[in-house]
Amino acid sequence: MPNSVDRYGEGVVHREVSTIAQGHEEVIKWLLGRHEELVVAIGSANESFTPKNPFTVGERIEMLISMLKELNLISKVMYCAVPDTKGDSALWYAYVHGQCPSFDVAYTNDEFTRLCFEYGNVKVLNTPFFNRETYSGTRIRELMATGDKSWRDLVATGVLPVLGRINAEDRVRRLMQKQI
Amino acid sequence: MPNSVDRYGEGVVHREVSTIAQGHEEVIKWLLGRHEELVVAIGSANESFTPKNPFTVGERIEMLISMLKELNLISKVMYCAVPDTKGDSALWYAYVHGQCPSFDVAYTNDEFTRLCFEYGNVKVLNTPFFNRETYSGTRIRELMATGDKSWRDLVATGVLPVLGRINAEDRVRRLMQKQI
Amino acid sequence: MPNSVDRYGEGVVHREVSTIAQGHEEVIKWLLGRHEELVVAIGSANESFTPKNPFTVGERIEMLISMLKELNLISKVMYCAVPDTKGDSALWYAYVHGQCPSFDVAYTNDEFTRLCFEYGNVKVLNTPFFNRETYSGTRIRELMATGDKSWRDLVATGVLPVLGRINAEDRVRRLMQKQI
Amino acid sequence: MPNSVDRYGEGVVHREVSTIAQGHEEVIKWLLGRHEELVVAIGSANESFTPKNPFTVGERIEMLISMLKELNLISKVMYCAVPDTKGDSALWYAYVHGQCPSFDVAYTNDEFTRLCFEYGNVKVLNTPFFNRETYSGTRIRELMATGDKSWRDLVATGVLPVLGRINAEDRVRRLMQKQI
Amino acid sequence: MPNSVDRYGEGVVHREVSTIAQGHEEVIKWLLGRHEELVVAIGSANESFTPKNPFTVGERIEMLISMLKELNLISKVMYCAVPDTKGDSALWYAYVHGQCPSFDVAYTNDEFTRLCFEYGNVKVLNTPFFNRETYSGTRIRELMATGDKSWRDLVATGVLPVLGRINAEDRVRRLMQKQI
Amino acid sequence: MPNSVDRYGEGVVHREVSTIAQGHEEVIKWLLGRHEELVVAIGSANESFTPKNPFTVGERIEMLISMLKELNLISKVMYCAVPDTKGDSALWYAYVHGQCPSFDVAYTNDEFTRLCFEYGNVKVLNTPFFNRETYSGTRIRELMATGDKSWRDLVATGVLPVLGRINAEDRVRRLMQKQI
Repeated sequence: MPNSVDRYGEGVVHREVSTIAQGHEEVIKWLLGRHEELVVAIGSANESFTPKNPFTVGERIEMLISMLKELNLISKVMYCAVPDTKGDSALWYAYVHGQCPSFDVAYTNDEFTRLCFEYGNVKVLNTPFFNRETYSGTRIRELMATGDKSWRDLVATGVLPVLGRINAEDRVRRLMQKQI
Repeated sequence: MPNSVDRYGEGVVHREVSTIAQGHEEVIKWLLGRHEELVVAIGSANESFTPKNPFTVGERIEMLISMLKELNLISKVMYCAVPDTKGDSALWYAYVHGQCPSFDVAYTNDEFTRLCFEYGNVKVLNTPFFNRETYSGTRIRELMATGDKSWRDLVATGVLPVLGRINAEDRVRRLMQKQI
Repeated sequence: MPNSVDRYGEGVVHREVSTIAQGHEEVIKWLLGRHEELVVAIGSANESFTPKNPFTVGERIEMLISMLKELNLISKVMYCAVPDTKGDSALWYAYVHGQCPSFDVAYTNDEFTRLCFEYGNVKVLNTPFFNRETYSGTRIRELMATGDKSWRDLVATGVLPVLGRINAEDRVRRLMQKQI
Repeated sequence: MPNSVDRYGEGVVHREVSTIAQGHEEVIKWLLGRHEELVVAIGSANESFTPKNPFTVGERIEMLISMLKELNLISKVMYCAVPDTKGDSALWYAYVHGQCPSFDVAYTNDEFTRLCFEYGNVKVLNTPFFNRETYSGTRIRELMATGDKSWRDLVATGVLPVLGRINAEDRVRRLMQKQI
Repeated sequence: MPNSVDRYGEGVVHREVSTIAQGHEEVIKWLLGRHEELVVAIGSANESFTPKNPFTVGERIEMLISMLKELNLISKVMYCAVPDTKGDSALWYAYVHGQCPSFDVAYTNDEFTRLCFEYGNVKVLNTPFFNRETYSGTRIRELMATGDKSWRDLVATGVLPVLGRINAEDRVRRLMQKQI
Repeated sequence: MPNSVDRYGEGVVHREVSTIAQGHEEVIKWLLGRHEELVVAIGSANESFTPKNPFTVGERIEMLISMLKELNLISKVMYCAVPDTKGDSALWYAYVHGQCPSFDVAYTNDEFTRLCFEYGNVKVLNTPFFNRETYSGTRIRELMATGDKSWRDLVATGVLPVLGRINAEDRVRRLMQKQI
């Protein structure tokens, strides 16, 4: 494998893989139409039980695997977890370097993530936008917080059973109530 | 998947997945003879370029995936990375809880790891020993350091190309020279 | 003692013991009407000189002890300090496990704290609300910041001399001015 | 209290309150013959399950309280926990400043601790040595590790039941076996 | 040098040396009119790529040196970097103590910084305000974000070429866009 | 300056600038014979009061400046401080990138430091050895510990007064006594 096949990483889901939305699914399919292999980096791996990252890394890995198995893509996608730098983002590209399997090019549509990669001389490309508004993790969590069951239509294939088992809706609702 | 299938984690490779030896391969096969799925936790995820953990987490994930693909086990084994607690090991079971997909029982033959799991009320079992002496990561690194090519016979299936690409032997040799 | 007496912890004052209000005093008395012993966990132990936690852990311990001595409860209440997890709240229950003397049940009225305890399988109960609005630490600090001396009527028994010695009003006023 | 009474801290048990020995008991009694109040700082609060600090902070607090209650000294001794600086010991005096109730003088017989206090302009005095060899925490842990029950004669008053409840001997024995 | 000359530190630029403004230049000249030597502490050394601290420590040191050389003051000003305490500001004076060359008095006009120095018994004085509004780093970064080239008139002597080399305007603009 | 002059960093003193020896002086002179400017990175900036790094970063900066002024090189040498990675050395090159002014090539004779630079694609060269045995910081500290005054002949030009002012010999002697 390592000799004859190109390796491609993508960071598009960085800071967003707290809830795996249909948008993530479409990006992954689009990338696998261009590359033979893919590395998905789960960002903010040092966060859990926050409004933006309500799920632990372990739970996020479970969601990702559940989707990949349903889509029969488990043998084409590698995954890993990258923590935030807690304010010293000039270090972030080195975190990615150390935590991820090797890759040749990163994909992201987030300007800040792109800036961090560029500072570390990592090649960065864009992905198309797949109706980002509707399919975003943020939208899903907002619906969960208000008890609007329509969030179930927005998550990626295969993720629903994982969210059910960990009582995701209940957790997100309670986290959103938290007054800081 | 999450409803009809039991989930089983194992921690046996904790503090040991710096170089994937044949012993790891045998343990994984033995566990998959008893459980339908497996979580492999890569321990000491906060270490790299040390004599005991010469490889980054990303490199260790690459080795593991390379082996799993060769053995056609990639769809049965989940993986994740767990950092050390830097001296506060009473927290370790919570690190595992947060970083790993859910599991029902942990496997380890290391007495210290067992103690840490027990403190967190995690069920722990032993695995058989598979000629540990010969197949250990420690032995492999010692041979690498002295330039004895027989280490190539001790690594797990599929790992060799990854070690070649990152110049593993050269790195280990130089790390071992370091006087602290 | 450890054999014949039940041990009971309570976490109600978590994230709130920055200034010990009359509300804390009432909760402690109420809990001691139900349990023989009590563990008070001083939360956010890693914070000081912030608008929400203007006092050091040492100063907060002094306030607590001063109150307990005045109320003649010093032999019934144990105390300890628990730091925040800095965004990885799934670890918090393990911080409490390691930093506190053993306990059988936790008390809190804070939904987020309850969520964190539940994730760690810790039994949690509620306490009654004792006119929380008027007696809260937040209210006390707001009055301090504006120079309204009526805050002196809201702190718990015995705490005033400690606050005087460390020039608490002056510190809180200056911290509140800080533009972030 | 804070007006009419002097406050005295002592740091003698720093890096040593992993197991409360008879020597600690004698030092505390000696100090209370000279001062009306005492602050006991539990050092290395960031360590647990290590050969040198096998017990969590919570467990160490339980031991201390158990002794103080047996000796009827609970109203004269305050306690707090101070973490290590992990290599930047020039910061240690500030850790003590923030984590401990206020004090006028520190006591220690450890030259390194004295050096750290002096760098922070903290007044430091010595205590007498009370047969240190026999009564040290190190000696107790060594006996525990070999299963020699005579360690029971060396711990401070009231500590034995706490050590029994947490299976201290078993834990220390297993920790000492750990090959690093 | 160390015997016959007084040493003077100043902390006025703490949390502000993200972009060296003309105000910083005037303060440094004013201080060198009163003291023979000066220590400039670059604050928030643990931050980079944030809206408030867009530049790395290395880049900030380059700006400072570039200014000092232009002004022919390089032999009179020492510099060092001090990280933030991440919420435990009671420790900050010890960070300054350890990271900076020795000094006799600190200068700051920031009330919070003054509070932190006072807690550590460090002597603090004010500096005059030099048209702070117009010359502040905050103002410079706001102009950069909107593409208003007039920021070039507000930076200190000699800093412009450094900002040009690292594409400062582009970076600040992109950082300001970041939605958190 | 930044346009017309090359910038050159050197990392040779990494992990070694705890006591500035004559060897450091010679290396710096040799490098300035080849490059117009130099960045000296003070390594292990997170350590102090250890046998290997007995001095704070501030004290080490004072020594370096004192030497540079005596040698009339203060306008040609920039300095900065780089902390250790605490076991995750794959990140180290990014620490250097963020903490140091920009440079084109690094110099070191330490194999481990070279390995870390290579992993980050930093160009590394060697320096000549200048009688390393006799002039090393380690040798100086060993002599200090035994009270052998001949260490005074081994330190770099101008450093002696700084070491005298901070009672370096006394500190090193006491640190070496520390039993760990």
